[in-house]
Amino acid sequence: MRTVKAINYDSFGGADVLRVGERDLGELRPKDVRIKVAYSALNRADLLQVAGKYPNQKAPLPLGLEAAGEIESVGENVQGLKVGDRVMALLNGGGYAEMQRKELRSQRLSCLAYQLLHWVGTTQEGAKVLIHGAGSGVGTSAIQLAKLNKNSIYATAGAESKLEKATELGAIKTLNYKENDFGEEWKAEKIDVILDCVGGDYWRKNMKVLGMDGIIVLYGLMGGVNVDGPLLAMILGKRAQIRGTTLMSRSEEYKTKLVSEFWNKNKSHFVDGSMSPVIDSIYDMTDVAEAHKYMATNKSNGKILLKMNL
Amino acid sequence: MRTVKAINYDSFGGADVLRVGERDLGELRPKDVRIKVAYSALNRADLLQVAGKYPNQKAPLPLGLEAAGEIESVGENVQGLKVGDRVMALLNGGGYAEMQRKELRSQRLSCLAYQLLHWVGTTQEGAKVLIHGAGSGVGTSAIQLAKLNKNSIYATAGAESKLEKATELGAIKTLNYKENDFGEEWKAEKIDVILDCVGGDYWRKNMKVLGMDGIIVLYGLMGGVNVDGPLLAMILGKRAQIRGTTLMSRSEEYKTKLVSEFWNKNKSHFVDGSMSPVIDSIYDMTDVAEAHKYMATNKSNGKILLKMNL
Repeated sequence: MRTVKAINYDSFGGADVLRVGERDLGELRPKDVRIKVAYSALNRADLLQVAGKYPNQKAPLPLGLEAAGEIESVGENVQGLKVGDRVMALLNGGGYAEMQRKELRSQRLSCLAYQLLHWVGTTQEGAKVLIHGAGSGVGTSAIQLAKLNKNSIYATAGAESKLEKATELGAIKTLNYKENDFGEEWKAEKIDVILDCVGGDYWRKNMKVLGMDGIIVLYGLMGGVNVDGPLLAMILGKRAQIRGTTLMSRSEEYKTKLVSEFWNKNKSHFVDGSMSPVIDSIYDMTDVAEAHKYMATNKSNGKILLKMNL
Repeated sequence: MRTVKAINYDSFGGADVLRVGERDLGELRPKDVRIKVAYSALNRADLLQVAGKYPNQKAPLPLGLEAAGEIESVGENVQGLKVGDRVMALLNGGGYAEMQRKELRSQRLSCLAYQLLHWVGTTQEGAKVLIHGAGSGVGTSAIQLAKLNKNSIYATAGAESKLEKATELGAIKTLNYKENDFGEEWKAEKIDVILDCVGGDYWRKNMKVLGMDGIIVLYGLMGGVNVDGPLLAMILGKRAQIRGTTLMSRSEEYKTKLVSEFWNKNKSHFVDGSMSPVIDSIYDMTDVAEAHKYMATNKSNGKILLKMNL
């Protein structure tokens, strides 16, 4: 048994239901490690969870899909990691806590962007890729990964500073969706893969800019859930595919394989600087409600971190 | 130059625009063979072509996506086939003719069902497969192929005779869509792959019966093109995929590879009887308009053939 500080919420609602409380980590099992969390990071899924809108969610869940810190203790069957190692972890939840128990099959790096681009999108080298929400944590990571994949990168966001960052990271064309219509501007571009966190508001424009055999990877619904028109005719006419995906709901086995592949292929890029996390801001864990409200404004450019008070 | 009898139409319309006319086959090129066509077969795409509703179609096209007959002449660079060989061919059009010039890269067997089930649907052995339009040519073929793939087969059609045939071919559950709602009846089944030629009318029911990571292969729109509701939320909630496909619009290279793979894997099944084409009826080529009208009634159970008057 081990009780640590954590961010809790007792009922679904807005950011104000969040509070610093406690969590019982339970016993350390043979394959677990405990991570002393230095930073956790916000994800759009966290906001949905707090609001009770995450797919198939029935009750409040431990928050926090990512954590970085040091190993504080290891179970008796753990190999290859020792107390004091610095690690990052991809979690099923619970990263918003001082200490996180983590079974040792998945570890190290958040790699949603890698999953979207390579596993779900199966993006070919050199293909044209359109990345919506280019200023988000996953957006900025996806641009870096797409550049390494020699893709021609199109990026949309709602602020000039985000578009400038996207260009700096490797986008060849950018567009401010508040001022221009990418469906019109890019309708002749024949995009191969679209990473879409918007959904409803964009379905018609996405179909317009997509080329033959194009793929839309749908991983968020910030622009609504509805379709109202001849989507199926457009899908058939372009032999298009829509592939829905979420990472949190995946099996531990899937995540382990994902993290492992991502890290093996990209470790060197973090050393040579061709990949590095884009950090927007850092909040103290006691200001978690403020951090959530800020994320909801869509003003962040890169990741929003929570400092966990070591 | 070679002029043969063929089914033509000068303007888009219903079956009555069809007439027996002539077609100039042009010169026999080095890699061509000429097939003396014994039978061609109707496809749903033919009706769409005549109506001018096939995706991306601008002008009348030669009709006929399949032909069976004998080789009448071979080009100088053709290897492996000789005059008199009995062949079946998968065509870009032109099968509704006495004679068909065919470049020799794709040949032999119609295999849309194989494409839907294996290439587009990537259907795992043993998975649950729902086949709509179970009485169609592609439906009956798909059931046979799914059975060889050890799938649990669910089938829908609009007549008892079609459902009986589906059961005989290997379906474990069948449903008459005119009398029952598969969305309700099968909502707990967690289907892995749906082969859907219906589209609009079925989108909500399809999403309901689909399991996690389920795939809808969309290859027709007999029930309309529109979506009117929260499709995207359903896609995300189930990590579902919609994969649109047509065969006619594919490259010659794609078709060649498809036919070749299909034939290599399934030749023995035509010999041992585990696959055999289900034939509904045979029309004389002069009755092509009647054949098209009959297909439009959706009463056929298996393929409708055109006898080409050898």
